[in-house]
Amino acid sequence: MAGKMASCIFCKIIKGEIPCFKLTETEKTLAFLDINPLSLGHALVIPKHHGEKLTDIPDDHLTDILPIAKKLALATGAHEYNILQNNGRGAHQEVGHVHFHMIPKPNPQEGLGISWPQQKPDMDKLKALAEDIKSKM
Amino acid sequence: MAGKMASCIFCKIIKGEIPCFKLTETEKTLAFLDINPLSLGHALVIPKHHGEKLTDIPDDHLTDILPIAKKLALATGAHEYNILQNNGRGAHQEVGHVHFHMIPKPNPQEGLGISWPQQKPDMDKLKALAEDIKSKM
Repeated sequence: MAGKMASCIFCKIIKGEIPCFKLTETEKTLAFLDINPLSLGHALVIPKHHGEKLTDIPDDHLTDILPIAKKLALATGAHEYNILQNNGRGAHQEVGHVHFHMIPKPNPQEGLGISWPQQKPDMDKLKALAEDIKSKM
Repeated sequence: MAGKMASCIFCKIIKGEIPCFKLTETEKTLAFLDINPLSLGHALVIPKHHGEKLTDIPDDHLTDILPIAKKLALATGAHEYNILQNNGRGAHQEVGHVHFHMIPKPNPQEGLGISWPQQKPDMDKLKALAEDIKSKM
Protein backbone atom coordinates (compact mmCIF):
# COMPACT_ATOMS: atom_id res chain seq x y z
CA MET A 1 0.00 0.00 0.00
CA ALA A 2 2.72 2.50 0.95
CA GLY A 3 4.50 1.92 -2.36
CA LYS A 4 1.32 2.34 -4.35
CA MET A 5 0.46 5.55 -2.50
CA ALA A 6 3.93 6.99 -3.13
CA SER A 7 3.51 6.61 -6.88
CA CYS A 8 -0.20 7.54 -7.03
CA ILE A 9 -0.81 10.74 -8.96
CA PHE A 10 -4.00 11.51 -7.03
CA CYS A 11 -2.23 11.03 -3.67
CA LYS A 12 0.37 13.54 -4.92
CA ILE A 13 -2.39 15.98 -5.82
CA ILE A 14 -3.94 15.51 -2.35
CA LYS A 15 -0.55 16.22 -0.73
CA GLY A 16 -0.06 19.30 -2.94
CA GLU A 17 2.99 17.81 -4.65
CA ILE A 18 1.24 18.13 -8.02
CA PRO A 19 -1.00 21.15 -8.70
CA CYS A 20 -4.69 20.90 -9.56
CA PHE A 21 -7.60 23.19 -10.28
CA LYS A 22 -9.15 22.66 -6.85
CA LEU A 23 -12.89 23.26 -6.51
CA THR A 24 -13.55 22.29 -2.92
CA GLU A 25 -12.29 19.99 -0.20
CA THR A 26 -13.24 18.57 3.17
CA GLU A 27 -11.22 16.60 5.71
CA LYS A 28 -11.86 13.41 3.71
CA THR A 29 -12.54 14.50 0.13
CA LEU A 30 -11.04 16.62 -2.66
CA ALA A 31 -12.76 17.90 -5.81
CA PHE A 32 -10.94 19.36 -8.80
CA LEU A 33 -11.33 19.83 -12.55
CA ASP A 34 -10.42 16.96 -14.84
CA ILE A 35 -7.65 18.40 -17.05
CA ASN A 36 -8.69 16.18 -19.95
CA PRO A 37 -12.38 17.02 -19.84
CA LEU A 38 -15.17 15.43 -21.83
CA SER A 39 -17.16 18.67 -21.47
CA LEU A 40 -16.96 22.06 -19.79
CA GLY A 41 -17.12 21.56 -16.01
CA HIS A 42 -16.03 17.89 -16.00
CA ALA A 43 -14.84 17.44 -12.42
CA LEU A 44 -13.48 14.69 -10.19
CA VAL A 45 -14.39 13.94 -6.58
CA ILE A 46 -11.89 11.71 -4.78
CA PRO A 47 -11.56 10.30 -1.27
CA LYS A 48 -8.31 11.31 0.43
CA HIS A 49 -8.01 7.70 1.56
CA HIS A 50 -6.00 5.81 -1.05
CA GLY A 51 -7.82 2.83 -2.50
CA GLU A 52 -8.05 1.43 -5.99
CA LYS A 53 -11.68 0.37 -6.04
CA LEU A 54 -14.93 1.32 -4.33
CA THR A 55 -14.62 -1.72 -2.08
CA ASP A 56 -11.26 -0.43 -0.77
CA ILE A 57 -12.72 2.81 0.63
CA PRO A 58 -14.00 3.01 4.23
CA ASP A 59 -17.69 3.88 4.54
CA ASP A 60 -16.96 7.10 6.44
CA HIS A 61 -15.11 8.38 3.37
CA LEU A 62 -17.76 7.16 0.94
CA THR A 63 -20.53 9.07 2.73
CA ASP A 64 -18.72 12.33 1.99
CA ILE A 65 -18.62 11.91 -1.81
CA LEU A 66 -22.14 12.38 -3.19
CA PRO A 67 -23.11 15.56 -1.33
CA ILE A 68 -19.98 17.12 -2.87
CA ALA A 69 -20.81 15.79 -6.35
CA LYS A 70 -24.24 17.36 -5.91
CA LYS A 71 -22.71 20.73 -4.97
CA LEU A 72 -20.52 20.54 -8.08
CA ALA A 73 -23.50 19.80 -10.31
CA LEU A 74 -25.28 22.82 -8.84
CA ALA A 75 -22.25 25.13 -9.10
CA THR A 76 -21.52 24.23 -12.73
CA GLY A 77 -25.16 24.79 -13.62
CA ALA A 78 -25.25 21.51 -15.55
CA HIS A 79 -28.80 20.49 -16.46
CA GLU A 80 -27.90 17.03 -17.68
CA TYR A 81 -24.87 15.15 -16.38
CA ASN A 82 -23.46 11.73 -15.50
CA ILE A 83 -21.90 10.56 -12.26
CA LEU A 84 -19.47 7.76 -13.06
CA GLN A 85 -16.97 5.75 -11.06
CA ASN A 86 -15.01 3.03 -12.86
CA ASN A 87 -13.44 0.03 -11.16
CA GLY A 88 -10.72 -1.86 -13.02
CA ARG A 89 -8.92 -1.35 -16.34
CA GLY A 90 -11.54 -3.41 -18.15
CA ALA A 91 -14.18 -1.03 -16.81
CA HIS A 92 -12.32 2.04 -18.13
CA GLN A 93 -10.48 3.01 -14.91
CA GLU A 94 -7.36 5.00 -15.84
CA VAL A 95 -5.95 6.02 -12.43
CA GLY A 96 -5.73 3.44 -9.63
CA HIS A 97 -7.25 5.71 -6.93
CA VAL A 98 -11.04 5.83 -6.62
CA HIS A 99 -12.48 8.86 -8.41
CA PHE A 100 -16.01 9.93 -9.21
CA HIS A 101 -16.54 11.83 -12.43
CA MET A 102 -19.21 14.54 -12.61
CA ILE A 103 -19.53 14.99 -16.38
CA PRO A 104 -21.91 17.60 -17.80
CA LYS A 105 -23.76 16.40 -20.92
CA PRO A 106 -24.50 19.63 -22.80
CA ASN A 107 -25.18 17.95 -26.16
CA PRO A 108 -24.92 14.52 -27.82
CA GLN A 109 -21.35 15.16 -29.04
CA GLU A 110 -19.79 16.25 -25.75
CA GLY A 111 -19.68 14.53 -22.38
CA LEU A 112 -19.86 10.83 -21.62
CA GLY A 113 -20.73 8.44 -24.44
CA ILE A 114 -22.78 5.46 -23.27
CA SER A 115 -23.74 2.24 -25.00
CA TRP A 116 -26.22 -0.07 -23.36
CA PRO A 117 -25.97 -3.73 -24.48
CA GLN A 118 -29.12 -4.81 -22.66
CA GLN A 119 -29.63 -8.53 -22.08
CA LYS A 120 -32.93 -10.39 -22.30
CA PRO A 121 -34.33 -10.82 -18.79
CA ASP A 122 -34.69 -14.37 -17.45
CA MET A 123 -36.91 -14.01 -14.39
CA ASP A 124 -36.07 -17.42 -12.89
CA LYS A 125 -32.37 -16.73 -13.20
CA LEU A 126 -32.77 -13.24 -11.71
CA LYS A 127 -34.75 -14.61 -8.77
CA ALA A 128 -32.06 -17.21 -8.00
CA LEU A 129 -29.35 -14.57 -8.41
CA ALA A 130 -31.10 -12.18 -6.02
CA GLU A 131 -31.28 -14.93 -3.37
CA ASP A 132 -27.59 -15.70 -3.87
CA ILE A 133 -26.51 -12.05 -3.58
CA LYS A 134 -28.76 -11.48 -0.53
CA SER A 135 -27.19 -14.48 1.21
CA LYS A 136 -23.75 -12.84 0.80
CA MET A 137 -24.71 -9.40 2.14
CA MET B 1 -44.22 16.50 -6.94
CA ALA B 2 -47.12 14.41 -5.59
CA GLY B 3 -48.34 13.72 -9.13
CA LYS B 4 -44.91 12.69 -10.30
CA MET B 5 -44.48 10.40 -7.30
CA ALA B 6 -47.85 8.73 -7.91
CA SER B 7 -46.83 7.71 -11.41
CA CYS B 8 -43.19 6.92 -10.59
CA ILE B 9 -42.37 3.24 -11.14
CA PHE B 10 -39.57 3.32 -8.55
CA CYS B 11 -41.85 4.90 -5.93
CA LYS B 12 -44.28 2.05 -6.61
CA ILE B 13 -41.49 -0.47 -6.11
CA ILE B 14 -40.51 1.25 -2.83
CA LYS B 15 -44.14 1.06 -1.65
CA GLY B 16 -44.36 -2.61 -2.66
CA GLU B 17 -47.04 -1.92 -5.28
CA ILE B 18 -44.76 -3.38 -7.97
CA PRO B 19 -42.55 -6.37 -7.13
CA CYS B 20 -38.76 -6.34 -7.39
CA PHE B 21 -35.85 -8.66 -6.76
CA LYS B 22 -34.86 -6.87 -3.55
CA LEU B 23 -31.26 -7.20 -2.42
CA THR B 24 -31.17 -5.00 0.66
CA GLU B 25 -32.77 -1.92 2.14
CA THR B 26 -32.35 0.65 4.87
CA GLU B 27 -34.69 3.34 6.16
CA LYS B 28 -33.63 5.62 3.30
CA THR B 29 -32.41 3.33 0.51
CA LEU B 30 -33.50 0.32 -1.55
CA ALA B 31 -31.34 -1.96 -3.70
CA PHE B 32 -32.68 -4.44 -6.23
CA LEU B 33 -31.70 -6.20 -9.44
CA ASP B 34 -32.13 -4.39 -12.73
CA ILE B 35 -34.54 -6.59 -14.69
CA ASN B 36 -32.97 -5.52 -17.99
CA PRO B 37 -29.36 -6.15 -16.97
CA LEU B 38 -26.24 -5.29 -18.94
CA SER B 39 -24.44 -8.12 -17.11
CA LEU B 40 -25.03 -10.69 -14.38
CA GLY B 41 -25.47 -8.87 -11.06
CA HIS B 42 -26.44 -5.48 -12.55
CA ALA B 43 -28.19 -3.81 -9.61
CA LEU B 44 -29.81 -0.49 -8.76
CA VAL B 45 -29.49 1.53 -5.56
CA ILE B 46 -32.16 4.18 -5.12
CA PRO B 47 -33.04 6.73 -2.45
CA LYS B 48 -36.54 6.29 -1.05
CA HIS B 49 -36.91 10.06 -1.36
CA HIS B 50 -38.41 10.84 -4.76
CA GLY B 51 -36.28 13.15 -6.86
CA GLU B 52 -35.44 13.22 -10.54
CA LYS B 53 -31.82 14.31 -10.36
CA LEU B 54 -28.93 14.13 -7.92
CA THR B 55 -29.51 17.76 -7.00
CA ASP B 56 -33.07 16.91 -5.89
CA ILE B 57 -31.98 14.45 -3.19
CA PRO B 58 -31.31 15.58 0.42
CA ASP B 59 -27.75 14.99 1.60
CA ASP B 60 -28.86 12.63 4.39
CA HIS B 61 -30.23 10.29 1.72
CA LEU B 62 -27.19 10.64 -0.53
CA THR B 63 -24.81 9.60 2.25
CA ASP B 64 -26.56 6.22 2.44
CA ILE B 65 -26.02 5.25 -1.22
CA LEU B 66 -22.33 4.44 -1.74
CA PRO B 67 -21.80 2.16 1.27
CA ILE B 68 -24.67 0.06 -0.10
CA ALA B 69 -23.25 0.08 -3.65
CA LYS B 70 -19.97 -1.11 -2.11
CA LYS B 71 -21.75 -3.96 -0.30
CA LEU B 72 -23.39 -4.98 -3.58
CA ALA B 73 -20.06 -4.99 -5.41
CA LEU B 74 -18.63 -7.23 -2.67
CA ALA B 75 -21.65 -9.56 -2.59
CA THR B 76 -21.76 -10.04 -6.36
CA GLY B 77 -18.03 -10.78 -6.38
CA ALA B 78 -17.53 -8.41 -9.32
CA HIS B 79 -13.84 -7.66 -9.93
CA GLU B 80 -14.43 -4.91 -12.45
CA TYR B 81 -17.58 -2.78 -12.43
CA ASN B 82 -19.01 0.68 -13.06
CA ILE B 83 -21.04 2.88 -10.76
CA LEU B 84 -23.22 5.14 -12.90
CA GLN B 85 -25.96 7.65 -12.19
CA ASN B 86 -27.51 9.47 -15.13
CA ASN B 87 -29.25 12.85 -14.90
CA GLY B 88 -31.56 13.85 -17.72
CA ARG B 89 -32.79 12.15 -20.89
CA GLY B 90 -29.84 13.50 -22.87
CA ALA B 91 -27.54 11.83 -20.34
CA HIS B 92 -29.26 8.45 -20.78
CA GLN B 93 -31.64 8.63 -17.77
CA GLU B 94 -34.62 6.35 -18.41
CA VAL B 95 -36.59 6.56 -15.15
CA GLY B 96 -37.20 9.96 -13.54
CA HIS B 97 -36.21 8.87 -10.01
CA VAL B 98 -32.52 8.97 -9.05
CA HIS B 99 -30.91 5.54 -9.38
CA PHE B 100 -27.33 4.38 -9.15
CA HIS B 101 -26.33 1.47 -11.35
CA MET B 102 -23.76 -1.04 -10.11
CA ILE B 103 -22.83 -2.80 -13.35
CA PRO B 104 -20.32 -5.68 -13.33
CA LYS B 105 -17.95 -5.60 -16.33
CA PRO B 106 -17.00 -9.27 -16.78
CA ASN B 107 -15.74 -8.87 -20.36
CA PRO B 108 -15.61 -6.28 -23.16
CA GLN B 109 -18.96 -7.43 -24.63
CA GLU B 110 -21.07 -7.32 -21.47
CA GLY B 111 -21.68 -4.50 -19.01
CA LEU B 112 -21.51 -0.76 -19.61
CA GLY B 113 -20.14 0.48 -22.92
CA ILE B 114 -18.22 3.73 -22.58
CA SER B 115 -16.88 6.16 -25.13
CA TRP B 116 -14.65 8.99 -24.05
CA PRO B 117 -14.58 11.98 -26.42
CA GLN B 118 -11.73 13.73 -24.61
CA GLN B 119 -11.20 17.43 -25.33
CA LYS B 120 -7.85 19.19 -25.65
CA PRO B 121 -7.02 20.88 -22.34
CA ASP B 122 -6.76 24.68 -22.32
CA MET B 123 -5.10 25.50 -19.00
CA ASP B 124 -6.06 29.20 -18.98
CA LYS B 125 -9.69 28.33 -19.64
CA LEU B 126 -9.66 25.62 -16.95
CA LYS B 127 -8.14 28.01 -14.42
CA ALA B 128 -10.84 30.61 -15.08
CA LEU B 129 -13.54 27.94 -14.98
CA ALA B 130 -12.28 26.62 -11.62
CA GLU B 131 -12.45 30.13 -10.16
CA ASP B 132 -15.97 30.56 -11.50
CA ILE B 133 -17.21 27.23 -10.09
CA LYS B 134 -15.52 27.85 -6.72
CA SER B 135 -17.24 31.22 -6.45
CA LYS B 136 -20.61 29.45 -6.81
CA MET B 137 -20.00 26.77 -4.18
